Amino acid sequence: MKLWQKDKGSLKEVERFTIGRDPEFDIILAPFDVLGSMAHATMLKEIGLLTEDELQLLLKGLREIYYEIEKGEFTIAEGVEDVHSQVEFLLTERYGEVGKKLHSGRSRNDQVLVDLKLYYRSAIRDLVEASQELFDLLIELSEKHKHDLMPGYTHTQLAMPSSFGLWFGSFAESLAEDMELLKAAYKLTNKNPLGSAAGYGSSFPLNRTLTTELLGFEDLHHNVINAQNSRGKTEKFLAFAISGLAGTLNKLSADTCVFMNQHFGFISFPDELTTGSSIMPHKKNPDVFELIRAKTNQLQGVPQEITLLLTNLTTGYHRDLQLLKESIFPGIASLLDCLDMSVFMLKEVRVKENILQDPFYKHLFSVEVVNDLVLQGIPFRDAYKKVGLDIEKDNFTPDQSTVKHTHEGSIGNLCTNEIKAKMEKAVQDFDFDNTTAKLIKLIQG
Amino acid sequence: MKLWQKDKGSLKEVERFTIGRDPEFDIILAPFDVLGSMAHATMLKEIGLLTEDELQLLLKGLREIYYEIEKGEFTIAEGVEDVHSQVEFLLTERYGEVGKKLHSGRSRNDQVLVDLKLYYRSAIRDLVEASQELFDLLIELSEKHKHDLMPGYTHTQLAMPSSFGLWFGSFAESLAEDMELLKAAYKLTNKNPLGSAAGYGSSFPLNRTLTTELLGFEDLHHNVINAQNSRGKTEKFLAFAISGLAGTLNKLSADTCVFMNQHFGFISFPDELTTGSSIMPHKKNPDVFELIRAKTNQLQGVPQEITLLLTNLTTGYHRDLQLLKESIFPGIASLLDCLDMSVFMLKEVRVKENILQDPFYKHLFSVEVVNDLVLQGIPFRDAYKKVGLDIEKDNFTPDQSTVKHTHEGSIGNLCTNEIKAKMEKAVQDFDFDNTTAKLIKLIQG
Amino acid sequence: MKLWQKDKGSLKEVERFTIGRDPEFDIILAPFDVLGSMAHATMLKEIGLLTEDELQLLLKGLREIYYEIEKGEFTIAEGVEDVHSQVEFLLTERYGEVGKKLHSGRSRNDQVLVDLKLYYRSAIRDLVEASQELFDLLIELSEKHKHDLMPGYTHTQLAMPSSFGLWFGSFAESLAEDMELLKAAYKLTNKNPLGSAAGYGSSFPLNRTLTTELLGFEDLHHNVINAQNSRGKTEKFLAFAISGLAGTLNKLSADTCVFMNQHFGFISFPDELTTGSSIMPHKKNPDVFELIRAKTNQLQGVPQEITLLLTNLTTGYHRDLQLLKESIFPGIASLLDCLDMSVFMLKEVRVKENILQDPFYKHLFSVEVVNDLVLQGIPFRDAYKKVGLDIEKDNFTPDQSTVKHTHEGSIGNLCTNEIKAKMEKAVQDFDFDNTTAKLIKLIQG
Amino acid sequence: MKLWQKDKGSLKEVERFTIGRDPEFDIILAPFDVLGSMAHATMLKEIGLLTEDELQLLLKGLREIYYEIEKGEFTIAEGVEDVHSQVEFLLTERYGEVGKKLHSGRSRNDQVLVDLKLYYRSAIRDLVEASQELFDLLIELSEKHKHDLMPGYTHTQLAMPSSFGLWFGSFAESLAEDMELLKAAYKLTNKNPLGSAAGYGSSFPLNRTLTTELLGFEDLHHNVINAQNSRGKTEKFLAFAISGLAGTLNKLSADTCVFMNQHFGFISFPDELTTGSSIMPHKKNPDVFELIRAKTNQLQGVPQEITLLLTNLTTGYHRDLQLLKESIFPGIASLLDCLDMSVFMLKEVRVKENILQDPFYKHLFSVEVVNDLVLQGIPFRDAYKKVGLDIEKDNFTPDQSTVKHTHEGSIGNLCTNEIKAKMEKAVQDFDFDNTTAKLIKLIQG
Repeated sequence: MKLWQKDKGSLKEVERFTIGRDPEFDIILAPFDVLGSMAHATMLKEIGLLTEDELQLLLKGLREIYYEIEKGEFTIAEGVEDVHSQVEFLLTERYGEVGKKLHSGRSRNDQVLVDLKLYYRSAIRDLVEASQELFDLLIELSEKHKHDLMPGYTHTQLAMPSSFGLWFGSFAESLAEDMELLKAAYKLTNKNPLGSAAGYGSSFPLNRTLTTELLGFEDLHHNVINAQNSRGKTEKFLAFAISGLAGTLNKLSADTCVFMNQHFGFISFPDELTTGSSIMPHKKNPDVFELIRAKTNQLQGVPQEITLLLTNLTTGYHRDLQLLKESIFPGIASLLDCLDMSVFMLKEVRVKENILQDPFYKHLFSVEVVNDLVLQGIPFRDAYKKVGLDIEKDNFTPDQSTVKHTHEGSIGNLCTNEIKAKMEKAVQDFDFDNTTAKLIKLIQG
Repeated sequence: MKLWQKDKGSLKEVERFTIGRDPEFDIILAPFDVLGSMAHATMLKEIGLLTEDELQLLLKGLREIYYEIEKGEFTIAEGVEDVHSQVEFLLTERYGEVGKKLHSGRSRNDQVLVDLKLYYRSAIRDLVEASQELFDLLIELSEKHKHDLMPGYTHTQLAMPSSFGLWFGSFAESLAEDMELLKAAYKLTNKNPLGSAAGYGSSFPLNRTLTTELLGFEDLHHNVINAQNSRGKTEKFLAFAISGLAGTLNKLSADTCVFMNQHFGFISFPDELTTGSSIMPHKKNPDVFELIRAKTNQLQGVPQEITLLLTNLTTGYHRDLQLLKESIFPGIASLLDCLDMSVFMLKEVRVKENILQDPFYKHLFSVEVVNDLVLQGIPFRDAYKKVGLDIEKDNFTPDQSTVKHTHEGSIGNLCTNEIKAKMEKAVQDFDFDNTTAKLIKLIQG
Repeated sequence: MKLWQKDKGSLKEVERFTIGRDPEFDIILAPFDVLGSMAHATMLKEIGLLTEDELQLLLKGLREIYYEIEKGEFTIAEGVEDVHSQVEFLLTERYGEVGKKLHSGRSRNDQVLVDLKLYYRSAIRDLVEASQELFDLLIELSEKHKHDLMPGYTHTQLAMPSSFGLWFGSFAESLAEDMELLKAAYKLTNKNPLGSAAGYGSSFPLNRTLTTELLGFEDLHHNVINAQNSRGKTEKFLAFAISGLAGTLNKLSADTCVFMNQHFGFISFPDELTTGSSIMPHKKNPDVFELIRAKTNQLQGVPQEITLLLTNLTTGYHRDLQLLKESIFPGIASLLDCLDMSVFMLKEVRVKENILQDPFYKHLFSVEVVNDLVLQGIPFRDAYKKVGLDIEKDNFTPDQSTVKHTHEGSIGNLCTNEIKAKMEKAVQDFDFDNTTAKLIKLIQG
Repeated sequence: MKLWQKDKGSLKEVERFTIGRDPEFDIILAPFDVLGSMAHATMLKEIGLLTEDELQLLLKGLREIYYEIEKGEFTIAEGVEDVHSQVEFLLTERYGEVGKKLHSGRSRNDQVLVDLKLYYRSAIRDLVEASQELFDLLIELSEKHKHDLMPGYTHTQLAMPSSFGLWFGSFAESLAEDMELLKAAYKLTNKNPLGSAAGYGSSFPLNRTLTTELLGFEDLHHNVINAQNSRGKTEKFLAFAISGLAGTLNKLSADTCVFMNQHFGFISFPDELTTGSSIMPHKKNPDVFELIRAKTNQLQGVPQEITLLLTNLTTGYHRDLQLLKESIFPGIASLLDCLDMSVFMLKEVRVKENILQDPFYKHLFSVEVVNDLVLQGIPFRDAYKKVGLDIEKDNFTPDQSTVKHTHEGSIGNLCTNEIKAKMEKAVQDFDFDNTTAKLIKLIQG
């Protein structure tokens, strides 16, 4: 870097530093930028800032670009600053001056805000669908292995009988509950910021309710400063939702790495999904789950990355906000990857049978036996004493093949239907289809 | 510390280290512990593990303790391990053996889980109410100052006209939107874990649906492992909600500290609410807002504290989880304090009038003037050129007393009613009254 | 809280909020505040702002207070703002007007800064000494168990032979290496900020080199703005050092919790140091190590707490900095506690012998056997093939009682002396005795 | 992703997921991998596992590859797993079977560890040099502007006179002090892990002292488990050092963004280094400094990212550790960029002169005037009273052109030489030249 060269050299260096990784993220935003522009143009015509002819020309041009993006034919030309400029440039090149009229009543600030909102809305749909796929598999595994007992641990110590049905099912229900945070993020995402301009509104008589409707937003950020300040806050909420799901996958993978250890040996995977060694036949390294554990730690760090970027900043746009993309865009992709890989691996999981029949585990059953005696009418203290003595005298030989748990959510009563209903309800609340229908209408005219 | 002494000395040292700050937190949990026990006892009778007489005795005893807690007469006796033991001890002392029967079908794990859930539910209600109070004040200030213009900044640079109406209103709407995360936390909190025992269920035929109903829970964590794993996850969700609100207050206080700086001088407070110096009359230190800024940074760190405690841990209870209280209990109290102090201070805020009429700010109006010309029919390029030339020739004398913004959420159209409706809707969704009614019924019998 | 009451009520509320937890921390700072004042007074006399008589009176009074603090007789009186005021108040009460002269050429900002630096310097000494005690015990255990083999894991999978000698020794060397961060923190702590006044220096002809010498500082923060900005930065460096040590203890406790699990059963502790159950005789809950694991996670979060408080703040004192104490003071205490409890527990650790002689572990020795053949002159490929075939045919019967590792830092050559020398060198570098000698001289005159 | 396809498809998916971003990082490690191999080969010959001829062949081949890397001609071939495999593959392709002998007595674990250590050592040198460059510029600016007064703030309120000399100088001294953390990181980095094999040592009679010497390491991680556990710990220490420097740059950029605000207007930059608008002539957006502020927040988050990856993990290699590179490699590059861009911008900084002569700032001088009277012999109370009254009667007209601060580190006595000496001493301590000399000797033979 030649620091002493000025003028063009300076500009170039500043440009490199300020543009950063935006080009790679802008390609992701491209289709959403076009959609935002279609709604904005339609609104401009409505308030008299565009003629009907101008609008039709712009919609035609935008539609063309949309389909080019879909076909992967869209790129940001060398020297063009960003996706917004590229779209405007193409419109003007193809349809003349009208292309420049699109920018009336809009600033880069609310334009990128609306692009981001539309992208996040779409990403949340992807996350919900990937979560559902994993959920379905976990439910299937839970049902399949409902009679396969395994030990349950507290303090990392052998404690009580558990089952693979319970274990798989616990992650299914956890995923269903993680939807709540996604929904909170979706609610904030699904608010229209368009019309907030540079964060202080516009003296044009914009119709923000119209663009809200056209883009399928559930509501708008009414206050324009609040709309601008939603940059960063939206990413923070989304990061929380990502961290929530990541927490569930982190525990799943932490368990898996331990259960694959030879001392446990509870679950295994086909050789091609693990790594090993010909002279160390015991070794089946759980690399994929170690990486899911690690990646979900990265993901659980995203809220803090975003908080650090935002905190102590005053109201209004700051260039700092540009770097939010560097945390949240890869975060979305990584979480999708972790969800998909969990499905990929768990489809092949093999569960060890009859684990608890080994006498090694017999003390796990002591509470069962005590409770059993109580249910037969023996006072608790006497039951407890009897079992304690039996154990002491090494006279304790419980039935280790089964447990009789009947209450809601227990080994013998997994409540699979209730858990499935929880997930279905959660997914329905997002109302994705309605939103998508609106976007399709906007594109198709 | 005499490390070489064993036996009792050892026990004492281990006891001190493992008990930690629990006694101070247990006092907070006490009323909820009693409520949980009332529901559990009622259920035990239902499934035949208690007689009607035993139940009535227990309920009587528990009610007495509940009222003692309310009157501040409850303490955990020297040498008693925790709140659960103290309640059981009192029951047994007063009503004999029946006191010990309460523990059937329950473990410390699900007992403390249900206590925590009930406490968090109540804490969320406090947070919502404190948020509402601040919201109402912000709305009031927004309306009161809707004609008081101030500069709007981007990149910390003077940019466009704004108003105190917009500025106060932005935080009101932000608070309303923060309710979404609180709702997600509330949803997870409002699920009954009772009956999960040590995290693997019980061989007693518990009726978890009944305790769910009695304690006013909306639903239950069905899967018992998932119920146990909700320890930590519930705190994490709640920490996210706390961080959300803290983010709004952080920006409010960051703005306030800057606006009180003498170069700005936009807002001020009565002398007794700031600190100063007789020979430095300019100095009005915004200590309260600096501390709110700092405390909201502490609060925004709570999600990470909790994530660190939880991550990479396997399924099932670990003693690590005990320390969650050290992050979340003071976090709740601190956020309430920050909300209250914001109200306390803002009730006295004084706003400088006619800021923008100073010629120093005239360039803020350049975009207004351009748009005005456009709306009068002059093409944008010509309007822009004219204004640019006027500015260059120092010929630019805009009307700095008012702006004509009319669209939704702009200076001239704050959408106060829409924002209020947003908050009302958010608060209603919690359905606190129904929950409270159930608890009252449980206490009063 | 009655918000509408003004005047006294307001003041009280603001006071409560701004004082926060300072009184509890101020007691810790008290002796250091007196030392700082003794040095400052001596310097004031040197530059002619105090007479010799005034100085002697002040030193006498300060010495009295110092000894009162040592005897636990010092308290901050009701209504007195902080430790600085209390000391000044006592001096004035006892010796008249001269007590007020102490504040010349000093501001609260540099006064508290020097108090903090002196306290942190002392706390670092405590941390080094507690680390040394644990180090010595680990070295002792490493030597004691150098012949006790255990498995070594990679990917949580059984991999190679290891030993308890190696395992204990690894934490000893890790502690020695953690001293580097403590040293970096000490270097920054050991710089005199006195004389920086409110962060912009003073028009009095202060002699900062003299107070540097009197207080035993190695150097001074020369630039007065930098001296002020060291508030926060010093705590951040110290938090890094704390996090470093916490990382070592976290791994030690994570290992311990796993090794106490019944599938491993490698180490155990006397019953009174664990918790169990009479009907679950297998259960020995490692509560202390779970809490060390959890507390070291809290400690590893301290750097982030502090970073959040500081980031994006401009130069100069902000009230936010007051809250640094809430992170770092308890952090120091908690780390000392974790170090002490590690010593307390490990003094009683019992190690299982002859673990690796179980045929379960035989494949751990495959690489040993291959290498052995290579050293006997057989080409690697042939050796590898032979062992692979032996294993395949279940013909592999290695000597599982010993391994022949000879290189530096291996099972057979622990380099205990080199590791001890590393620790000794690290500790010597702090040069604590010299510093202490200076303080004693200052107190004793 | 077609999840149902097995075999090759599975392998590919697992491969993609597990390899991740390694190829881009491996190119960075390539030269260090070759150096590590040269040392390892030399040692293998020394202990009889290679003949002299084999060694010479290997050294020749490795040297060739080293120069190819230097010339940018080295790539990792399609299908080759990593840099280690590529080097071995090239050696074997070019020189036959001897290429495979290089792997004796070494595992991937210690091979990549030594590569990383060598890379970090080199990166720390880059960071020190970039810091020095910025330091030199800050010192130059401090001296150049030592007579240019500016206001000093506390609580973001106007407080006392300061100067640009002080302000620039404060960051210079801060950088010099940041070297302490870099040194701590360097100390840990500069320890040889080679010979620790998979983390449990080797049964070959390796000579680790020899490779330590050949690679210019100051010392070795003696204990092999500790050597393995230094993976992650080394990155954590380095992340702390990065965060330290980032903290200094964060404050510099936070100040700069505020000082460029029009209410302050203290500093400015040439137009081509800021962004503006023709109709908003006041606007000079400080994008570069906003991004430095933001990037230094990302960098201050790196310690937490790394802590999350490591915490609660047991001893020994886990695949999780692979992701450390994703945090630390870009972190190093970003910090270098921020340091360089700070130099780039500050070379062009323009400082406003005579700021404090504006009557707006006269109260800043009140303490100066009081102190002046005291030094003239007037008792403090009387002096204070007089100035207070003068201010009250608007009779206060201090000399606002200069201040008479003379003590160490004050406006009139910047101690530039002492601060420069501090930096020089810090840099010398690294002893980079000696290390480099050793590597050159190794390469050139």
